Amino acid sequence: MLTVITTAVWSYNKVKETVTFTTAIAEDATPTVLKRILEIETSPVEVIKFEKGTYHFYPEKGLEKFWHISNHNDVLIRTAFPIIKKENITIDGQGSTFIFHGKMIPFLINQSKNITVKNVSIDWHETFHSEGKIIARNEEENTFDIQIPESYPYIIRNNQLIFIKEYYEHTIGQSILYDPERGGAIAFNTEAYTPITSYKKITVSRNLESIKYKYKVDNRAPFLGKMFQENKISVKELKPGVVRVFNHKNKKKDLPPVGYTIAMKGAQGKNRLAPAFHVTFTDGFNGYNVNVHHAGGMGLIAENSSDLILEKFNIFPSNGRMVSTTADATHFVGCRGKVQLKDCLLSGQLDDGSNIHGTYQEVVDILGPNKIGVRMGHFQQQGFVIGREGDQIGIVRIQDSFFPYEKDLTIKSIEYRSGRYQVITFNQELPSKIKAGDLIENQDAYPEVLVENCTFKNNRARGLLLSVPRKTIVRNNYFHTEMEALLIPVESGHWFEAGNQKNLLVENNVFEDCQHSGFNRGVIRFDTDDENKNIAFSNITITKNIFKQFDNLILQITNVDGLEFSENTITNSQTFPQLHNENPAFKITASKNVNFSDNIYKGKATKIIETDDKQVVFQ
Amino acid sequence: MLTVITTAVWSYNKVKETVTFTTAIAEDATPTVLKRILEIETSPVEVIKFEKGTYHFYPEKGLEKFWHISNHNDVLIRTAFPIIKKENITIDGQGSTFIFHGKMIPFLINQSKNITVKNVSIDWHETFHSEGKIIARNEEENTFDIQIPESYPYIIRNNQLIFIKEYYEHTIGQSILYDPERGGAIAFNTEAYTPITSYKKITVSRNLESIKYKYKVDNRAPFLGKMFQENKISVKELKPGVVRVFNHKNKKKDLPPVGYTIAMKGAQGKNRLAPAFHVTFTDGFNGYNVNVHHAGGMGLIAENSSDLILEKFNIFPSNGRMVSTTADATHFVGCRGKVQLKDCLLSGQLDDGSNIHGTYQEVVDILGPNKIGVRMGHFQQQGFVIGREGDQIGIVRIQDSFFPYEKDLTIKSIEYRSGRYQVITFNQELPSKIKAGDLIENQDAYPEVLVENCTFKNNRARGLLLSVPRKTIVRNNYFHTEMEALLIPVESGHWFEAGNQKNLLVENNVFEDCQHSGFNRGVIRFDTDDENKNIAFSNITITKNIFKQFDNLILQITNVDGLEFSENTITNSQTFPQLHNENPAFKITASKNVNFSDNIYKGKATKIIETDDKQVVFQ
Repeated sequence: MLTVITTAVWSYNKVKETVTFTTAIAEDATPTVLKRILEIETSPVEVIKFEKGTYHFYPEKGLEKFWHISNHNDVLIRTAFPIIKKENITIDGQGSTFIFHGKMIPFLINQSKNITVKNVSIDWHETFHSEGKIIARNEEENTFDIQIPESYPYIIRNNQLIFIKEYYEHTIGQSILYDPERGGAIAFNTEAYTPITSYKKITVSRNLESIKYKYKVDNRAPFLGKMFQENKISVKELKPGVVRVFNHKNKKKDLPPVGYTIAMKGAQGKNRLAPAFHVTFTDGFNGYNVNVHHAGGMGLIAENSSDLILEKFNIFPSNGRMVSTTADATHFVGCRGKVQLKDCLLSGQLDDGSNIHGTYQEVVDILGPNKIGVRMGHFQQQGFVIGREGDQIGIVRIQDSFFPYEKDLTIKSIEYRSGRYQVITFNQELPSKIKAGDLIENQDAYPEVLVENCTFKNNRARGLLLSVPRKTIVRNNYFHTEMEALLIPVESGHWFEAGNQKNLLVENNVFEDCQHSGFNRGVIRFDTDDENKNIAFSNITITKNIFKQFDNLILQITNVDGLEFSENTITNSQTFPQLHNENPAFKITASKNVNFSDNIYKGKATKIIETDDKQVVFQ
Repeated sequence: MLTVITTAVWSYNKVKETVTFTTAIAEDATPTVLKRILEIETSPVEVIKFEKGTYHFYPEKGLEKFWHISNHNDVLIRTAFPIIKKENITIDGQGSTFIFHGKMIPFLINQSKNITVKNVSIDWHETFHSEGKIIARNEEENTFDIQIPESYPYIIRNNQLIFIKEYYEHTIGQSILYDPERGGAIAFNTEAYTPITSYKKITVSRNLESIKYKYKVDNRAPFLGKMFQENKISVKELKPGVVRVFNHKNKKKDLPPVGYTIAMKGAQGKNRLAPAFHVTFTDGFNGYNVNVHHAGGMGLIAENSSDLILEKFNIFPSNGRMVSTTADATHFVGCRGKVQLKDCLLSGQLDDGSNIHGTYQEVVDILGPNKIGVRMGHFQQQGFVIGREGDQIGIVRIQDSFFPYEKDLTIKSIEYRSGRYQVITFNQELPSKIKAGDLIENQDAYPEVLVENCTFKNNRARGLLLSVPRKTIVRNNYFHTEMEALLIPVESGHWFEAGNQKNLLVENNVFEDCQHSGFNRGVIRFDTDDENKNIAFSNITITKNIFKQFDNLILQITNVDGLEFSENTITNSQTFPQLHNENPAFKITASKNVNFSDNIYKGKATKIIETDDKQVVFQ
């Protein structure tokens, strides 16, 4: 039944073997593909091709791994492509579509070198999110009605709406409105309506004081985070396919308007489990001409890897859906060398277009003159290993400085104890100043970044989150995002995403009606989570961009030393009513050497600049 | 702060190193103990002693493993004692008590040889179950009230009672009544009242037919099993520590009587996660003078191991609790060599005293002349590997025979794909008869069994479950169990627990008021799950035992060839009212060569034997 054509081609002085799978395996390609990939060690392959077609991949006969994935849940996942400890392999779909079923990671790439995936579209048979249309609302009764297409099977359990998938289910949980009439963009002012307020605090709890955690606990992790919450909303089916939701409206959120599509992906902390690509400890990954139509998590999440080049790596929905991936389109943690996104379309996903950062880990134990115990701060960083032997580690005390007070430590070894705890030994003695609560940061694990000719649109959240103290170029891109187009943070207390941006060039981009979901924030925003005047960001150039914004606030900066904003053109798009017309175009705090020159302003702000630095003038 | 005393003692021509931990580490022994155990490879240890004291073990700095455990959930678990690939190690508590916190496996023993644990008591700070007292019942309103001691913290969430533990929580879920006035035995006739009927079927489900599973699914696994159920009961707090439960009573279950203790351990499929001892692929394990007061699962679960000797290995509750371990006291899967329980007290646990069996795996794919794909039938067998290289594998077609039609295959290799699926290659060609749906069974993975001088009492379920086609002796024991004292099954369709008992000697035991929870079953019962007249059991001797039973049915057999029941004394204890006074003393079906001789019967049965074999006479 299954046909595997194997041809050997000589290339230079080594065998270059090509395996071509035909559509004979299309019904469930998993066992055949997996078998061949597991045989690579004894029977090398350089190119794995697929006859053009649609291939289904079921989990049942896939390789199972318990897998830590940064910014995702830790998962017991199946895959047909365990590219583990492999070198110089190209997977070429030749225009095929791969349809995955259930909890799978399409491409699990680990400890490998020079891996290419190209010419393939990735989709899922049942999505990890669900969509419905708002067809009625009743202010008096505090209800709204959702029409649920047949493609999203559901049940009602304990008066809650549960969407049923293959080996998966989810509640309404995290939700947002899409506007089908604007090409499936996020609905204007969605923050006034969503997320649906699923939870409220419980009222009865007894004798919990007898449970004494000896060590710091994570109240944001799913277990403790959800423990003291219960359902606020309830639902009732009016007729097959139409469900009424009760009790959403509160002081902060109104009933959603009729006509919008509501995208629902279940409870936070439980809904990121099946990214399309996971790349870890891999040097050299190329994704070329790849379409990711869906994933139960991110399109691509790379960790501790180098030289990740995405070209025509497109995230966009299929089958009339509003949503593509249920989390970020792409995300890079602790990567080095080059990270490049070129000619990519990143759209429809339920989180950022890309987020590039390091990881802070908290010092909790001083175990010897050159040994510390560290704690992973965020539950979705569990299992993250901060670097490789010899990497330079900085020690940061955020309240004193955003930069390390100690930079001369290099990693000798890391003992992995658990997802939350590791023991790190350095080649050098620890500084005497070190104490529990300090953060460590890998100085070597930041890449040079190029984002060029890409389109960021129709997604929840940001276009780019950048925390990269290396040369970063954002050029010739188009942004239409519901939050910031560019968010440049120092973030140490929640996500523990390390890095202070410097040497950033933002050039020749078009920003159109970003930040349209209701937040009172800039289109480009620099932010730190410690309120002080210490410098976090430097050598920033924003030049020759076009801002076509419906609202005033363009640039919002803090803790910057050295920013040039020049030759930009700012107009008012008139697309939406202004939400925050009291805003200036630019907000500047705790910054110095900020220069505006040769810009054209045709916006509506009555005050151009609000700043605590009197030397700043808009030209 | 932490003191580790290390002394080296010469023994013959090798270093016999003894490490003694002192109570200086008692506050959290985990990091120090773990560090030393991880160092064994480079710094050998033969004896690890603990200064007598009470030691706490917290999970935070323990070693984390994702771990498959037979008859348990698959768990992400922490341990301070990862005895992995170790030889000749004795852990001597010297009378200490180890208190564990949260999701930990106290002793995780894997791929080791000759490991001894002795002189230690194991307990948990917060238990994985909860207990309350029934203080009121109201037939008209269909409610009962539970008084919950301060030692069981709880919350009410979505009108459900949730018990809160360290990094764990559970609902009422599986529940049973204990009778404090009978020394903490299971309450008489508890099956009339429990388990509390927590669930009912949902009523709304739409478009589920679009989810087409390509392969067989497990409707008993937690995901699909619970998908279509919702809460039947609800609760309301009357005052702190007193909770009213609504809507339990139905046609089958009455409201629980006032005065009993109700033990609750949460939903089936989610509540077996932290056994006290897990022993896998280990040759030689000795547990001597060990008290297991609690575990979130079994006291000891051994798989694929040989020569497991438990002596004075006691399971009993502490701190006034009714419940010890939340599942079986001991359990042996696919073990070989000797399994012995001597002078053990197995009491208070929420499942069987011991269960000794093999594992059936279902043939799902014929992959080549000597290669098959097998599926694990029960979700709590996921990850189980059926044996070792060279083991003899039988192929069984239960509807034809309880014994293999093919026995000459030996394992060449096993490729582990997932918890559910493995590929097995044999040294021989497969029989032509083989087809999907057949079961495989490891002929070599059964032990000789000795159970001697043990007490089985006060637990939910059985005393011993035996499925061992090797010499088995059950001698000088005392049984007071709520279900069968001895259950001898062939079970292929639910738990997939393989094995046909033969060569069993049951001698000189006392059986007192077993099967008192309401089931209409024998004290000793043989059972098969395929209704036919094929022989499953042979060479059974039940002799010189004393049965002091309140009810009639003593022995219930089927599919037996060769059973001697002799020199036994049967009296009526009058302890409880009879529940099934229509029963005979003995029920015999589909059996031959069954002989009764020299027994004394002083029971109440009006008919001694009910049999389809006219040759059987009670003497």
